[in-house]
Amino acid sequence: MVTRQMRQWISSGSAIRAMFEEGKQLARRYGADNVYDFSLGNPSLPAPEAVREAFCDVLRTCDPLELHGYMSNSGYDDVRAAIARRLSERDGVAYRACDVVMTVGAAGGMNVLLKSILEPSDEVVVFAPYFGEYRRYVENYGGILVECAPNPPAFLPDPKELAAKISPRTKAVIVNTPNNPTGVVYPRACIAAICDVLQSFRARGQEICLISDEPYRELVYDGAQATPIAPLYPNTVVCYSYSKSLSLPGERIGYLALHPEIADGDALRDACNVATRVLGFVNAPSLQQKMLLRCLDLPIDVSAYDDNRRALCEILDACGLEYVKPQGAFYLFVRSPLADDRAFCETAKRENLLLVPGSGFGCAGWVRVAYCVSMRTIRRSADAFARLARRCAEISGAR
Amino acid sequence: MVTRQMRQWISSGSAIRAMFEEGKQLARRYGADNVYDFSLGNPSLPAPEAVREAFCDVLRTCDPLELHGYMSNSGYDDVRAAIARRLSERDGVAYRACDVVMTVGAAGGMNVLLKSILEPSDEVVVFAPYFGEYRRYVENYGGILVECAPNPPAFLPDPKELAAKISPRTKAVIVNTPNNPTGVVYPRACIAAICDVLQSFRARGQEICLISDEPYRELVYDGAQATPIAPLYPNTVVCYSYSKSLSLPGERIGYLALHPEIADGDALRDACNVATRVLGFVNAPSLQQKMLLRCLDLPIDVSAYDDNRRALCEILDACGLEYVKPQGAFYLFVRSPLADDRAFCETAKRENLLLVPGSGFGCAGWVRVAYCVSMRTIRRSADAFARLARRCAEISGAR
Repeated sequence: MVTRQMRQWISSGSAIRAMFEEGKQLARRYGADNVYDFSLGNPSLPAPEAVREAFCDVLRTCDPLELHGYMSNSGYDDVRAAIARRLSERDGVAYRACDVVMTVGAAGGMNVLLKSILEPSDEVVVFAPYFGEYRRYVENYGGILVECAPNPPAFLPDPKELAAKISPRTKAVIVNTPNNPTGVVYPRACIAAICDVLQSFRARGQEICLISDEPYRELVYDGAQATPIAPLYPNTVVCYSYSKSLSLPGERIGYLALHPEIADGDALRDACNVATRVLGFVNAPSLQQKMLLRCLDLPIDVSAYDDNRRALCEILDACGLEYVKPQGAFYLFVRSPLADDRAFCETAKRENLLLVPGSGFGCAGWVRVAYCVSMRTIRRSADAFARLARRCAEISGAR
Repeated sequence: MVTRQMRQWISSGSAIRAMFEEGKQLARRYGADNVYDFSLGNPSLPAPEAVREAFCDVLRTCDPLELHGYMSNSGYDDVRAAIARRLSERDGVAYRACDVVMTVGAAGGMNVLLKSILEPSDEVVVFAPYFGEYRRYVENYGGILVECAPNPPAFLPDPKELAAKISPRTKAVIVNTPNNPTGVVYPRACIAAICDVLQSFRARGQEICLISDEPYRELVYDGAQATPIAPLYPNTVVCYSYSKSLSLPGERIGYLALHPEIADGDALRDACNVATRVLGFVNAPSLQQKMLLRCLDLPIDVSAYDDNRRALCEILDACGLEYVKPQGAFYLFVRSPLADDRAFCETAKRENLLLVPGSGFGCAGWVRVAYCVSMRTIRRSADAFARLARRCAEISGAR
């Protein structure tokens, strides 16, 4: 009954999701307090109280027929217009309501876009390490994921390698900054160099879509800033989700913003509308859309994540574990002291520490620590990290 | 930038959605009161007040971290368990929580299921007329839609034709009762005959999934009842949405219920979980899931739709237009008095009457009237229908 591909995916699984399920089991066995689950990018900050009030206000004041009814597949006009205005102010690009497509989170948005642009065997270039689900999304439409190699320890894309990896079949490049899993924020010069490469192909007639997957754009520290990409390249599509900034990952609300001057724009806007429908999303959930109208200007307070980041860095420093100091998102990338990052994660699990192997992000030899947890969990994990580092030293020494 | 297939879909479009957009334009030009928009299955009854209260109660009482956070891709355990209990009572089949997968409406559910089971070139059999989007859903996964011909005027499936249309590549059959677009409710004997056919193939080793798409199952009139299918065939998957019964089409909430004894059940349950994630749904919206916990026992009052149905039938009778008297859903199927149903809909549009051609449902020569509108719209449409009938008589007479 079940496809071969799906059977393979079931057995290979999502490393992240497998850890998530395992974490719940460990918590039942050892008590939640004694399990240090750094596996999932599930925000530890509750949604702002203003979000709750906005939901309630919408429910109290909107006509239920409009609130819960069908709208255009791309979303409510007023919501799209409000987001376009806000994004125009931020990016200095004149988005219109019609350039914004409301989506079932960033994952939904990316699928809508890829369905719209990928012919079978078209290629999509990503920079390792990258969010592992990109591979599935691309393969959903018969596309081929092409990896640029990771560049530790800075983990910045290499524009020369990008140029070399682009083929006549390249339809899109995905950029994700602040980055999952490294927490690295690409500097402006890095983004500009990527855009220059794409512009050079454009000058030769190849229009490549630059997908800016930016669910973490507000989660930045140490004065870092996520550079808006659209002003630098007209074939940019912003893929956004409110999962992280408003702590709403379960609510599945985000958007695509297509550059107003994107190549083939009329067809692409129509295609995204159609793709939203035919993929079975139909539209982004309506209540969540209307809530947003009241929450677009909410300040995003990342100080708790920043505190976590500092505390975790201190713990890792004390253990002598090597890592990339993150400037964004809520992930931290640690070099595995064992050659095999999966073996390292298994060893960590024996200390009730749940980490995710970098292999799942196209970067063997490293592991991801998601520090969107309580400060208490971080503090209590210090001894476990210390034991883990000692145990790894023993294992390595024994060889 | 945009795929060939998508370009074709943009130009062919969804007849229903095109009408919906056109209706909004006509309403702006002539005033909403003077446009009779029978195009979209958008419930005209507001969601019950209890739904609003449930949403507010959830927002007031649930921990926001749990309420808005990630859960298992298949949904919250408590919600799945509650639905399983309720469905078990209704169907007499012992569903467990793990048999229920929460989905982004029935459209999302169907995509999750088809992604799980269809290898390229696998076939899915449908009975015309059928919801036109099925074709897209099947083709999303490289499948081939195989139509059984419509049988006017009763529009019931012919089990003999079903048997003849099943090939070694047949993976699934879709049944939709109460039916969109005809409003016909398949009698129990008809369903039993379909199941008998599938059982005979099962006895020969071919496990065919029977997808029961039943978003309209509570919308029945004249004492008709939607027959539960699962007790008759173990490879049944119920595909449900709360869009129609609770008037929440924009909220995108529904479920798949896999028969506990379905072939390859363990793998199929896992596959649906994985498919929910890799297709970019990730999970059904969490707030909508939790709301359901408080609304599963709400009585569904269809009396307003029943009143509409009667009033519309009277109007059509008075005009001499032939139709199938519907016993379910909120659609009525009218025989086009012109040979070309698209030409008939164009003619209707000149009277500001928006109908949808049956061609889009695999049934040329008929048109769909969605009577989920206000009684006022139905009453006011009487003259327009009368003028339409006269105009068609003139056109036919002039030939």
